[in-house]
Amino acid sequence: MNKITENPGRDQRQASSGFEPVMRFGMDAPLLLDCGVSLAPLEIAYQTYGELNADKSNAILVCHALTGDQYVASTHPITGRPGWWSTIVGPGRPVDTSRYFVICANVVGGCIGSTGPTSINPATGKPYGLSFPVITIGDMVNAQARLVEALGIEQLFCVIGGSMGGMQVLQWAYDYPEKVFSAVPIATAAWHSAQNIAFHEVGRQAIMADPDWCGGDYLNQDRRPEKGLAVARMAAHITYLSESALHEKFGRNLQDREKIGFGFEADFQVESYLRYQGAAFVDRFDANSYLYLTRAMDYFDLAEEYGDVLAEAFRGTKTRFCVVSFTSDWLFPTSESRDIVQALNASAANVSFVEIESQKGHDAFLLDEPELFATLTGFLNAAAQKRGLKHGV
Amino acid sequence: MNKITENPGRDQRQASSGFEPVMRFGMDAPLLLDCGVSLAPLEIAYQTYGELNADKSNAILVCHALTGDQYVASTHPITGRPGWWSTIVGPGRPVDTSRYFVICANVVGGCIGSTGPTSINPATGKPYGLSFPVITIGDMVNAQARLVEALGIEQLFCVIGGSMGGMQVLQWAYDYPEKVFSAVPIATAAWHSAQNIAFHEVGRQAIMADPDWCGGDYLNQDRRPEKGLAVARMAAHITYLSESALHEKFGRNLQDREKIGFGFEADFQVESYLRYQGAAFVDRFDANSYLYLTRAMDYFDLAEEYGDVLAEAFRGTKTRFCVVSFTSDWLFPTSESRDIVQALNASAANVSFVEIESQKGHDAFLLDEPELFATLTGFLNAAAQKRGLKHGV
Repeated sequence: MNKITENPGRDQRQASSGFEPVMRFGMDAPLLLDCGVSLAPLEIAYQTYGELNADKSNAILVCHALTGDQYVASTHPITGRPGWWSTIVGPGRPVDTSRYFVICANVVGGCIGSTGPTSINPATGKPYGLSFPVITIGDMVNAQARLVEALGIEQLFCVIGGSMGGMQVLQWAYDYPEKVFSAVPIATAAWHSAQNIAFHEVGRQAIMADPDWCGGDYLNQDRRPEKGLAVARMAAHITYLSESALHEKFGRNLQDREKIGFGFEADFQVESYLRYQGAAFVDRFDANSYLYLTRAMDYFDLAEEYGDVLAEAFRGTKTRFCVVSFTSDWLFPTSESRDIVQALNASAANVSFVEIESQKGHDAFLLDEPELFATLTGFLNAAAQKRGLKHGV
Repeated sequence: MNKITENPGRDQRQASSGFEPVMRFGMDAPLLLDCGVSLAPLEIAYQTYGELNADKSNAILVCHALTGDQYVASTHPITGRPGWWSTIVGPGRPVDTSRYFVICANVVGGCIGSTGPTSINPATGKPYGLSFPVITIGDMVNAQARLVEALGIEQLFCVIGGSMGGMQVLQWAYDYPEKVFSAVPIATAAWHSAQNIAFHEVGRQAIMADPDWCGGDYLNQDRRPEKGLAVARMAAHITYLSESALHEKFGRNLQDREKIGFGFEADFQVESYLRYQGAAFVDRFDANSYLYLTRAMDYFDLAEEYGDVLAEAFRGTKTRFCVVSFTSDWLFPTSESRDIVQALNASAANVSFVEIESQKGHDAFLLDEPELFATLTGFLNAAAQKRGLKHGV
């Protein structure tokens, strides 16, 4: 069953992770990271859906969020649950796989098959742990660009993603403007805010406070900082919802009891729900990966080298943009999407902007939001027409 | 130096905590708690400022918030810092101690001198730890009522407090309407929201995940869950500020460096600030107390026994209310103060409501907010006139 896609730097070893397919770049083809380290070997685990057309003009790259992965529209091999965006990606869906060739790759630094802190460090023969170099959103995008090139695609018809995925979309449009015909950054920002850095730091401190983290070396010591990672997830999970969503969903309802228990068990449904979210997360995610990916988001700031003038980053771009935000998203509020839109307008870019009325908070981009579906369908149809894509592959 | 105030149930032992003065109620005068347990002995550590007038009509009770204490306007014995509300309470201040007699007591369940989980359990001769009964906001108020009675005060001129202190204010007005001439609940709510319960649960899980917590028995094992408590404080601290306050104060500024460090040190000022807040907190606060007090807030729901109709709780009240909220407070948003005001209006109560424009988030009630100062001064002056209080003691 193991399958490694052929590509220039490929060697003959099996995919190290068991998540396939994997595109592998060998020791002779290192990826130069923003921190200055050359990373090799580099494996990129990915999934594809639909068929690439003859002129390779119908490819859509989906970029996943912090705790997402390449299983955008297929069953997750660990959880057995449907793909995280299977409402959006599939035949007849807004990202229509009967029309488009959809690629989704686990980010570098991740833990679902792409090279990251759980991978073997060739210098030691042991898992990297904290010896893995700190990566950036730019590094993620450069790794994806190699995959896209190895698949023989010169230009992506569209790059789409929400949250950390949206950061990658913006970075793609910035780093590879000629390779991105259209771009849909959803529920994201051009730089990570102080509040969001603060929440990430709490999560990291929770992980690092867990003695089973072992200074990052837990894999070599057969331990796992599950409690710390669960606390990190719980804190983060609150930020993905809105106050009104929590009120609607749980309010002050009690869990499996008539009266408060005068103790520290999960009296309230919202407590029980959070504990479940924390416990389920540790089964599918690596604690060090969580450190690295949150750090990459914190470091993200597209305007930094332009004296905070974001418009300069996109000057002359030909990419068509559709920026999407949600009214109740307080993690990546509409104001941050508006900053992107204003910068794109100032760059004379082709940009549309939709703020979707929703009570579901940041998570809205993952949930059943008809207006999001309609927005994506409409934007992609119009862009396909401009690009000269025919219906059907 | 030890000083225990005389009172009916007093015995001759010294204050157990070293925080004085303390009002002590002995084994013969237990406090019946909402959970059904009778708590004895009960010590209430408190501070007073100003002088009680001849007819004992000028007493103001200040109720402290989750991590506050009785040192409202005097130097904190552990931190050496000024009282937490010394801008508000003092001679010539809005709560003018040249005119009013101000009392502030550490809540039952606290760790600055009042009976709580760090106190000695008379049944075992060891610190209570988790054998301390779970307490409620109502229990806190009943304990304070004993103190007030022991001080010979029949009616408080005013009860004031923010956040958890505001919950106590509402509970006072509900449980002892005849004893509360006026009440100022600030930045609070009549029931704790699902989102706030969720944040508290994260903090509790962080504490309980720390192996030094020892199932709550750390004091007997000479350990302290400092890492877990610091993480809990960090998570909570974010909720006390506003996104814009964090942006204004820190933005993406780096700490002691020119460039990002590509590591997990505190690159950003906001990270450094949070780490400091966490580290400083563990020096002055007990982890189990944190569990008990957050639980008391979670359980708070004044409308519960009235089928969620809050107005019923205040029907017939003669207390004069001044409800205060802050525009950027997302922990206790204005909508929750408005619920209180609407209920009081429906009860035909005497109520004024001030929403103060501030960028400082929930913490605004502790900070330099001239409009808060003016509001308190104005309300107290008008109430004093109604009460027939003369200027000067």
